[in-house]
Amino acid sequence: MLKKQKYNVAIAGATGAVGAEFIALLENRRFPVGELKLLASQKSVGKKLTFSGQEVAVCELTADSFKGIDIALFSAGADRSRQFAPCAVKAGAVVIDNSSAFRMDPHVPLVVPEINPDAAYKHEGIIANPNCTTIIMGVVVWPIHQINRVKHIVVSTYQAVSGAGAKALAELNTQQRDLVEGRKPKPQVFKHVIANNIFSHDSKVMDNGYNQEELKMIHETHKIFQDDGITISPTCVRVPIARAHSESIYMELARVVNLNDIHQVLSRATGVKVVDEPDNNLFPMPLDCSGRDAVLVGRIRRDPSVANAVSLFCCGDQLLKGAALNAVQIAELLI
Amino acid sequence: MLKKQKYNVAIAGATGAVGAEFIALLENRRFPVGELKLLASQKSVGKKLTFSGQEVAVCELTADSFKGIDIALFSAGADRSRQFAPCAVKAGAVVIDNSSAFRMDPHVPLVVPEINPDAAYKHEGIIANPNCTTIIMGVVVWPIHQINRVKHIVVSTYQAVSGAGAKALAELNTQQRDLVEGRKPKPQVFKHVIANNIFSHDSKVMDNGYNQEELKMIHETHKIFQDDGITISPTCVRVPIARAHSESIYMELARVVNLNDIHQVLSRATGVKVVDEPDNNLFPMPLDCSGRDAVLVGRIRRDPSVANAVSLFCCGDQLLKGAALNAVQIAELLI
Repeated sequence: MLKKQKYNVAIAGATGAVGAEFIALLENRRFPVGELKLLASQKSVGKKLTFSGQEVAVCELTADSFKGIDIALFSAGADRSRQFAPCAVKAGAVVIDNSSAFRMDPHVPLVVPEINPDAAYKHEGIIANPNCTTIIMGVVVWPIHQINRVKHIVVSTYQAVSGAGAKALAELNTQQRDLVEGRKPKPQVFKHVIANNIFSHDSKVMDNGYNQEELKMIHETHKIFQDDGITISPTCVRVPIARAHSESIYMELARVVNLNDIHQVLSRATGVKVVDEPDNNLFPMPLDCSGRDAVLVGRIRRDPSVANAVSLFCCGDQLLKGAALNAVQIAELLI
Repeated sequence: MLKKQKYNVAIAGATGAVGAEFIALLENRRFPVGELKLLASQKSVGKKLTFSGQEVAVCELTADSFKGIDIALFSAGADRSRQFAPCAVKAGAVVIDNSSAFRMDPHVPLVVPEINPDAAYKHEGIIANPNCTTIIMGVVVWPIHQINRVKHIVVSTYQAVSGAGAKALAELNTQQRDLVEGRKPKPQVFKHVIANNIFSHDSKVMDNGYNQEELKMIHETHKIFQDDGITISPTCVRVPIARAHSESIYMELARVVNLNDIHQVLSRATGVKVVDEPDNNLFPMPLDCSGRDAVLVGRIRRDPSVANAVSLFCCGDQLLKGAALNAVQIAELLI
């Protein structure tokens, strides 16, 4: 992309949960925005959103939306990305796509700026943003992988409902009010009641027994790390909290674990904050990382019986580092 | 113990969350109760609880409470067990203790009736009930261990607040009401806010970085299974739900996994119910097993890359199978 003083930016899916974060991040990170074009489905047309103190009207996302646009941030679902991202590329924009549509396409780089920033420069018009759980795991595992190769990961997730969108978050709130006021909650967005309950992730379960969210963690990590040799055993679970995903991660490394080295490398890692106070029983919690850029990591401990294994627990805001922030960081690499 | 037609039963901790389950189970399972003595701390004296349609007054738990008692069910905390269980034994009762006080004592059997019923008969007056997370994991892992030796377990838990007692449950309810009504929740029982949050288990973290709950899962499983060779890597986490613990379990077995065999052995296992419907995305959920005896198990799947590994997800009511039910089942072994 040509170096410019200002860049015209389009946001496809501007009225969604991630769209709102895109707008806030472009403003707060002082991204050099020229024109900002907010795009959504027809039913949102005319709605006005605020960017840098100015009202911007939402326009309909169509094939012709991208004339003059330099950077198009997409978070409108995989179907719309498949339909409209090629139009944006054709119009000359670079697309940074938050959906799963192009992530495993060999012509599309899958980028976490803390891990593989160089991949971003090899784009052919589209750069994919990884799945939220993959990003959160990746920024914590990658620094360790640099000093002691990660061979095997067992990960169980505790995923917030806003990862399933604004409607899912509204459903949690409604059901929690139902419980407090003595009504029986009825599931509508999710298949099962989420208030006072947990359930296996709501993505489709494939023939091998793994759901799509889990398979993303495996395949996307392989692509980002450029290392298909890491075996990954994920279990993805939805929990009744509003925001920020947590992950319990067990790792077997190539060599015996030196806990000091791991503490040190995580303390210095970009995008990571160590919160590890055993005496205070203070470790990463979703409430503490909601709205924060960094992925919090703690409970860093050597396995009691496996000399080359280490366990840890991390939390990240899946709407920020898990989605909008990562995409804006990719845009920052390009300018 | 002599075979009798009726047994005099004492419940120490009758007014607690587990105490209430003891009373209900003795009635519902038609345990041949002669006299029922309900014991608690002085502040509950005079309170009346109902057993089989009759009111029973709560008496103070003292050293002299156990005259004529055949079976004493203890769930009043480890300190009271240490203080009063020996008095009960001296008075001629068999103590079934739900606390951690005697679990690792080599003179005290640690019993899960589905796993090691014979150990119960070797008691010297006290039989210990394992920790709830240990029992729930054990009843699911044991049947698999019988057909293909379990060598390594990585387990992450999703533990309900009622596992921390009735006050913790009340705190969750209060905080959820606070959120719904727009107030900021304040932690009192737990160190951290539990509504809309998750946190590392509230037990003390030891020098090796593992908390006491996690160490119980390791050491108690070794004792119950009589197999110190199983390496266990637990992560225990509290989630904002009222009742029933869930566990995400990854296991490496001695030989290559045959998924049909594992399904079959779990389908036939006592105390276990398989809930495993990938097409409906229906797997074990805490809401579905609250108030139920069986531990629910599902998401039974071969690891995609480790030929001898299998993963599964289970839920159990930690006040029933994880506590009161297991203890009453032990009592049933004795009569």
